[in-house]
Amino acid sequence: MERAIAAAKAAGQAGEVPVGAVVTGPDGTVLAVAANEVERRADPLAHAEMLALSAARARGGEKYLLACTLTVTLEPCALCAAAMAALRVGRVVFGAYDPKGGAVEHGPRLFEQPTIHHRPEVIGGVREAECAALLREFFGDKRRA
Amino acid sequence: MERAIAAAKAAGQAGEVPVGAVVTGPDGTVLAVAANEVERRADPLAHAEMLALSAARARGGEKYLLACTLTVTLEPCALCAAAMAALRVGRVVFGAYDPKGGAVEHGPRLFEQPTIHHRPEVIGGVREAECAALLREFFGDKRRA
Repeated sequence: MERAIAAAKAAGQAGEVPVGAVVTGPDGTVLAVAANEVERRADPLAHAEMLALSAARARGGEKYLLACTLTVTLEPCALCAAAMAALRVGRVVFGAYDPKGGAVEHGPRLFEQPTIHHRPEVIGGVREAECAALLREFFGDKRRA
Repeated sequence: MERAIAAAKAAGQAGEVPVGAVVTGPDGTVLAVAANEVERRADPLAHAEMLALSAARARGGEKYLLACTLTVTLEPCALCAAAMAALRVGRVVFGAYDPKGGAVEHGPRLFEQPTIHHRPEVIGGVREAECAALLREFFGDKRRA
């Protein structure tokens, strides 16, 4: 989570919503680190998780990310959660909960859907206060700007 | 839908699950045509819709696909439906219904979720029998192989 938080902070300083993600392999090796790049790429799909998942898959050269862990500072949305299920990510660790956009513990709760093809293990709320503070500060600054 | 079906057929002949997608602009101009490339790219996220959406967005140079229509031969899954919401696609037209993997009229019914940020207009079942037959024939052939 340390590296995901660092990526999120750097993104925030660059004017992106501060979310960072890391994919680690079964032995803990870091396969990919990414941050939200929606503004820089002008691409609403360039979420930190999507970029980290794609990079990790390309690096591994395998179709799936079995036994890999995706660590992200914010509860994944439906796009990212569905991508994790499609890529058969072994475990998802996230920081802040997202009642508005989250799709793991909120909204569609994708991993609990009977039609989902794969359910990663989920651990939410890791360094939650710190991850949430990053977002709160970012949007606080935006409102004051 | 004609071009989406043609793309799906070509994909099926190349050993991909036969799904094709087209993005058209507000004036009906074709912005992108794509087919499922999951096997060729060894990428479980390379669905026809994802490829067509990305190509159309890159071509348009805008962040969103407002007032665009995504036409696809199969009911979109959660990944593709979430991408359409994120890209604010104006309208989704699909062919065959997918009770197992669909996320528009089945499963999480993403566009009906209260937390979704954007709800495209949805028209399902267009040339349904033809689109469904493509898939049935493909999987029938697979089972006999």
